Amino acid sequence: MVVTRVRDGKEMASTVIAYPDGVIDERLPGGPKLEPDWALQNPRDYLVVLEKGVPKALKEAKVKAEDVVGIGTDFTASSPLPTRRDGTPLCFLKEYRKQPHAWVKLWKHHAAQPEANRINEVGRERNEDFIRIYGGKYSSEWFLSKLLQVLDEAPAIYDAMDRFIESADWIVWQLTGEEKRNTCTAGYKAMWVKGRGFPSREFFGALHPRLENVVEEKLGATYYALGDRAGGLTPFWAQKTGLREGTPVSIGNVDAHVAVPACTVVEPGSLVMIMGTSICHMLLGTERQMVEGMCGTVEDGIVPGFWGYEAGQSAVGDIFAWFFEHGVPDYIHRQARQEKKPFVSVLEKRAAALKPGESGLVALDWWNGNRSILVDVDLTGLLLGMTLATRAEEIYRALIEATAFGTRTIVDAFDSKGIKVEHLVACGGLPEKSPLLMQIYADVTGRDIKLADPLQTCSAVGSAMHGAVAAGQAGGGYDTIYEAAKHMAKVQKLTYKPRQTAHEIYDGLFKEYRALHDYFGRGANDVMKRLKAMRRNAQ
Amino acid sequence: MVVTRVRDGKEMASTVIAYPDGVIDERLPGGPKLEPDWALQNPRDYLVVLEKGVPKALKEAKVKAEDVVGIGTDFTASSPLPTRRDGTPLCFLKEYRKQPHAWVKLWKHHAAQPEANRINEVGRERNEDFIRIYGGKYSSEWFLSKLLQVLDEAPAIYDAMDRFIESADWIVWQLTGEEKRNTCTAGYKAMWVKGRGFPSREFFGALHPRLENVVEEKLGATYYALGDRAGGLTPFWAQKTGLREGTPVSIGNVDAHVAVPACTVVEPGSLVMIMGTSICHMLLGTERQMVEGMCGTVEDGIVPGFWGYEAGQSAVGDIFAWFFEHGVPDYIHRQARQEKKPFVSVLEKRAAALKPGESGLVALDWWNGNRSILVDVDLTGLLLGMTLATRAEEIYRALIEATAFGTRTIVDAFDSKGIKVEHLVACGGLPEKSPLLMQIYADVTGRDIKLADPLQTCSAVGSAMHGAVAAGQAGGGYDTIYEAAKHMAKVQKLTYKPRQTAHEIYDGLFKEYRALHDYFGRGANDVMKRLKAMRRNAQ
Repeated sequence: MVVTRVRDGKEMASTVIAYPDGVIDERLPGGPKLEPDWALQNPRDYLVVLEKGVPKALKEAKVKAEDVVGIGTDFTASSPLPTRRDGTPLCFLKEYRKQPHAWVKLWKHHAAQPEANRINEVGRERNEDFIRIYGGKYSSEWFLSKLLQVLDEAPAIYDAMDRFIESADWIVWQLTGEEKRNTCTAGYKAMWVKGRGFPSREFFGALHPRLENVVEEKLGATYYALGDRAGGLTPFWAQKTGLREGTPVSIGNVDAHVAVPACTVVEPGSLVMIMGTSICHMLLGTERQMVEGMCGTVEDGIVPGFWGYEAGQSAVGDIFAWFFEHGVPDYIHRQARQEKKPFVSVLEKRAAALKPGESGLVALDWWNGNRSILVDVDLTGLLLGMTLATRAEEIYRALIEATAFGTRTIVDAFDSKGIKVEHLVACGGLPEKSPLLMQIYADVTGRDIKLADPLQTCSAVGSAMHGAVAAGQAGGGYDTIYEAAKHMAKVQKLTYKPRQTAHEIYDGLFKEYRALHDYFGRGANDVMKRLKAMRRNAQ
Repeated sequence: MVVTRVRDGKEMASTVIAYPDGVIDERLPGGPKLEPDWALQNPRDYLVVLEKGVPKALKEAKVKAEDVVGIGTDFTASSPLPTRRDGTPLCFLKEYRKQPHAWVKLWKHHAAQPEANRINEVGRERNEDFIRIYGGKYSSEWFLSKLLQVLDEAPAIYDAMDRFIESADWIVWQLTGEEKRNTCTAGYKAMWVKGRGFPSREFFGALHPRLENVVEEKLGATYYALGDRAGGLTPFWAQKTGLREGTPVSIGNVDAHVAVPACTVVEPGSLVMIMGTSICHMLLGTERQMVEGMCGTVEDGIVPGFWGYEAGQSAVGDIFAWFFEHGVPDYIHRQARQEKKPFVSVLEKRAAALKPGESGLVALDWWNGNRSILVDVDLTGLLLGMTLATRAEEIYRALIEATAFGTRTIVDAFDSKGIKVEHLVACGGLPEKSPLLMQIYADVTGRDIKLADPLQTCSAVGSAMHGAVAAGQAGGGYDTIYEAAKHMAKVQKLTYKPRQTAHEIYDGLFKEYRALHDYFGRGANDVMKRLKAMRRNAQ
């Protein structure tokens, strides 16, 4: 949560309040154990954070309530929940509290794969547009897979819910009393298309007879653009937060998408990478192109006036965290103790001393499947080239390089459709942690990389920018996101520039990566899927 | 060094004397730095060991010199050295001491690859028999590659040497004063064939004009069968060792080959595995078959009356040692400290708790290239199937399984030519270290595995058995190796038996291994070679 100055984007305060229940993936609070691949959240956590965080941030910023011109929010997506007509989550009601399907299904809830498969099958049979919009595959992580899972597995919950709604929209509903849903989550996660709305009732009926009228019954047909004003803060929430009643609240937004203007990007040519445990890649285009393996292509989906492309890598920081836990041998820890440094710095320094190609290793960065461009959660990691002389820092560097090749694959996919990527802008937690990683990304992609300022809170700054737009110039903010970006968004002076020799060597290594990528990822050898099945059978 | 009782094979004493100079792979003692891939030994070390070790072993065994009926020796091969006509190694002479080519080239000296390539090229052009005898490729580790390297790189040394001889034969020459070379090293490492001798002088001339008469000039044409009596101990060596002058000394032998009768194997059907840092596989057959990727097929090469097949895996224990050093994370070490156990036991126990297929991983065991059946030193390791949930013990188990698949590949190669492998007999250092490994080998190959007794000194026992045969029954020994085996060789009671369910699951996993083996090992994707080249260029 940040308090940001409208004039110049200066961060006046930054507060983090942890969700009391966090990610619920083992058992419901006080309730039953969850099945594998489930991931839920408690919507009460979202309210607790507002109640505690807003007064704290205001105090830290030394800002008075009357100086707050607007409020913007952003959320993970797709993270939907079932509610009553008045917005009460089913999981708040005693009779549903112990039912997992009554809670928020977090974006990384992966248990709706059978439903996603059915959606894709029916979609391909009927040649539905959405198949192309989502790069060939609709994900199990997305809104309608999760909705269909509720209907399949808990029809009573399906009956009991009046609304099925993204958390991003639910929180705006709470703050303003208005159920006004945003076009971004609808477009990226729920097949909604500007000017055309959802797929036909025939398509929904083909998925499940009871889904035929789901749009009218549970979703709603009107969607609102990013930066629109959803309404004013209710008296109840004004009292809870210490803000003024009626303070403008912008339409809901998605954490990755909202970061783009905060990275100064409001035009085509700059690929924004939100780099953390995974990477989200965001790019603006002047036209609609079907690019392989995109997570979605939505008109006005990021910034009004452009097509917003979203791609992603499902594990990046997560792979390094895995390696830190499971792959770092004693001699690294020993050196760290001797030098009184964190072991990650020792590893980083040793890896940085290697030249491109020197490790003799190449990896496929699929420890958590592949989001773009293959869209296949059942792919797994690969490491190739080990000899008896291979050392831990060489493996670490190969893992970094593999994730860079993953980004290069996405850049090339855009390039091949004429959607230019001239340079990259990074934000998130990863860039600060590893300058080596940033240099390798520049060398591998052959492009300059700029860093957002601030790096880590760019989504929050983006939300604040949208809050300023909800206020409008007359209300002390800005009339457009372009104006807001001009004044409130910044990049750092530091730019990572590609080094020619390294780029050439990585070009060769990338060819090897792509050959393995296509061999293991496009059906020539489905060993990864068979091993995963074997693993499931063994357990 | 062992003292073994002729009557029943009982080990009366076992002594190890370390080579003072060990493996010389960085710089010559007091001399210049060696190039990469060089590995030498000092022949003086072999003499020191005899001088110190024999009296020590006799004392420990409480055996009198007159009760020693015979002496047998075995050596690594091919480990040749250049000498004067009287047997003096060139490296003992002041003028050659600082010349690396004057020393023993140890079996794992890998710097003669260009020479091996030329030998194979010329061999294939001329359709020489040896190409088939050695499974399609003559190795850089072998006798003639090393000889040709001397001629290529140090013609002065080539001129100065009167003899180029295996250390196995040189030591017998020292002990007896007789230069009587053995058929085993000649057959497995130097293209010699029973009844036909070496390839033609035209072949040698095609390799290098100066090699045309090498057999007559430097090697000699007469070769002696294993177990033959080379001669009696010289007065000089009787005095040095405390043994009787004239004690029968058997013809030289190779460490792996000599172990076979010590494992009780003197007939076809039993595959002997000498398991340590690498594995040597030895099998007897009733006929000559060309089996893919064998290291050699030699008539009477292991036991008289049978064709001796040799195959091998170039890294097994070495891969685990690599993993122990470079891949074991902190939580294993932590648990080891808590339980006050060696970390390897903790790893072993955790790996043993996994079911076949449960790791979801498969590896290619090529950390040091592939000896059989692909015969390619430029292949490298692969690990596939990692997820964010993969743990260290799963990787360890996948590495064990990969080496077992390597052995299964060799077993299948024999099988496909009708050379039956009914069960396995293991000796060497590895079987005792890892019961898990032995069970996995039984499960993967679907065959019983027996263990030699003693396990670790089986080569020494085999040498002793050959010493007894050199003595003959009249001299207090045995007339044949069959008789010696009947009385002196033993296996343990413990037999590892394949478990049906595990065998079936491993059949599936082995199919995946073989698909990857063929894809990366037979030219469909030479990424491993290209990465190795890239690595060399980067350094």
